[in-house]
Amino acid sequence: MAGEFDLIANYFNWLDTSDNVQLGVGDDAAVLAITPNHELVISVDTLVSGVHYPLDTSPADIGYKSLIVNLSDIAAMGAVPKWFTLALTLPEYDENWLEGFSSGLKQAATEYGVALIGGDTTRGATTISIQIMGEVVAGEALKRSAAMSGDDLYISNTLGDAAAGLLIHQENQALSQVSRASNAPLKKLSDAEAYCISRLNRPTARVAESRVICQYATACMDISDGLLQDLSHLLKASQLGAIIDTANMAVSKQLASLYSRREVLKFAFSGGDDYELLFSVPKHHQVHFAAAMQKNNMSFQRIGELTNSVDEIRDEQGNLLSAGGFKHF
Amino acid sequence: MAGEFDLIANYFNWLDTSDNVQLGVGDDAAVLAITPNHELVISVDTLVSGVHYPLDTSPADIGYKSLIVNLSDIAAMGAVPKWFTLALTLPEYDENWLEGFSSGLKQAATEYGVALIGGDTTRGATTISIQIMGEVVAGEALKRSAAMSGDDLYISNTLGDAAAGLLIHQENQALSQVSRASNAPLKKLSDAEAYCISRLNRPTARVAESRVICQYATACMDISDGLLQDLSHLLKASQLGAIIDTANMAVSKQLASLYSRREVLKFAFSGGDDYELLFSVPKHHQVHFAAAMQKNNMSFQRIGELTNSVDEIRDEQGNLLSAGGFKHF
Repeated sequence: MAGEFDLIANYFNWLDTSDNVQLGVGDDAAVLAITPNHELVISVDTLVSGVHYPLDTSPADIGYKSLIVNLSDIAAMGAVPKWFTLALTLPEYDENWLEGFSSGLKQAATEYGVALIGGDTTRGATTISIQIMGEVVAGEALKRSAAMSGDDLYISNTLGDAAAGLLIHQENQALSQVSRASNAPLKKLSDAEAYCISRLNRPTARVAESRVICQYATACMDISDGLLQDLSHLLKASQLGAIIDTANMAVSKQLASLYSRREVLKFAFSGGDDYELLFSVPKHHQVHFAAAMQKNNMSFQRIGELTNSVDEIRDEQGNLLSAGGFKHF
Repeated sequence: MAGEFDLIANYFNWLDTSDNVQLGVGDDAAVLAITPNHELVISVDTLVSGVHYPLDTSPADIGYKSLIVNLSDIAAMGAVPKWFTLALTLPEYDENWLEGFSSGLKQAATEYGVALIGGDTTRGATTISIQIMGEVVAGEALKRSAAMSGDDLYISNTLGDAAAGLLIHQENQALSQVSRASNAPLKKLSDAEAYCISRLNRPTARVAESRVICQYATACMDISDGLLQDLSHLLKASQLGAIIDTANMAVSKQLASLYSRREVLKFAFSGGDDYELLFSVPKHHQVHFAAAMQKNNMSFQRIGELTNSVDEIRDEQGNLLSAGGFKHF
């Protein structure tokens, strides 16, 4: 790092708010105190411009989302996120971009109470790599591999909004090019459309929900690549199959207002970027679990149950939705 | 991550050798147990192709070096490196590159006893971001800010080989282009030249030395951007100045055989990529410190001492070498 790239660090030199940070940005390394009887939970996710977000996404949204996708991994472990590092590669020193990106990142960090403790800034094609760290009571991390046959299968909230948002955004970009070329007026987005795009750009990490879920769930993961694909990872790790009650699957009223039921389910099953939690709860916990979630005003739904048909995902009528990595939907 | 990019993970799915790894590659996050009464030390470094290593560096050397530069940061804190994550962005799925890179990375991981516990692989311009984690006894991390006026200033081993290696490599590339164009024979590298290039591509992280140094030093950092630049960071953090005994500074016999004394000092003072440790030791520890290093066959040298002339680096005759960020050398 040399010259003006040193300046980049100024955009990320926030005050550490956590009292467990012994030494933050500015030395060879950061030093953290882990709470006694807790384990450290670590995940890393990279966002590449044009691959993980549309090229015209606002820098503030990129900053916000790049932390959320990482927070979601910590929530999926039933852990409490605490700290993160940022490895940022940029083609040039762009004050506007840095100001937007750091403001979005800081907003997410503040909302979720995590501290930026270090990083590296380098020159190259735009790449944002965040490593997040959290804590969990020793031995209590929620793994993918501990689900049991007969457990009910749940998700937080609903699925499909972000995938619809991406499609709406892409269609809108194509339309606006036509409008610009023909000097025609640009159609305004409906509230429902704007909502779906906001779910794409400003997803929610289910960190609060995870505090309740971890008390009842046998296994948990987050849904970033679509329900069927991510569920197949959980099933493989737990050596199980699943039945999904497709007829009763709830989606947001915004998504339902925009597309046919068939399209809606396609977004929910195969779309990405939801960052909802997917988890299994033993049937005997059902009543207490539901009560605890409702008490905290947390949205969730039972979407089916786990079976012994390893790696097979079927609907309530027995139709195969996915098997051995191949998706029939 | 989808399709053939999933396969990349196979190159990095090594067995975790550390018994503190509760859960490694393959879940939403890794889970680690921190030794009681220890703090976690974390650093992240990104290597960009063509910026942090010449474009024609072998994949194995890139893999090896990308871990060493991170291990060096942990050694600089007086900590013991234990685990790392890898965020790897590549333009395409290239088996040969991945095989070379992962073999070099694995070699470094094995030599230094650190476990790869997670990562992310994405498609884009080549970017290698490694986050390394280690442990230090609570409260005993070696910071840059705790040096004292009158302390002796030391480095591990010698400086300048890597910077000379980079120049030799670049000159050799230029010559080989001429040779190819004119069909002339290519000059063989001398042993001394090959040694300098090997110090560039396969640096040493002073992890073992750090175990001894941490018992005596007041402050420590690693030298990655050249002695004068890195020393100025330490001086700023500790609010001190320094005198360097340039006449007595030892360099490798290979470097000394290749260049004039003046050139040699230029490499040592302003060249990068050395990854030696720079540290301060109170005078009253001098005898015991030297004995402990010698007993372990560890190479080191006293290069000067710390003064109260904040931010000024002078030679033994009082000439200014660097002040306030400006380098006179």
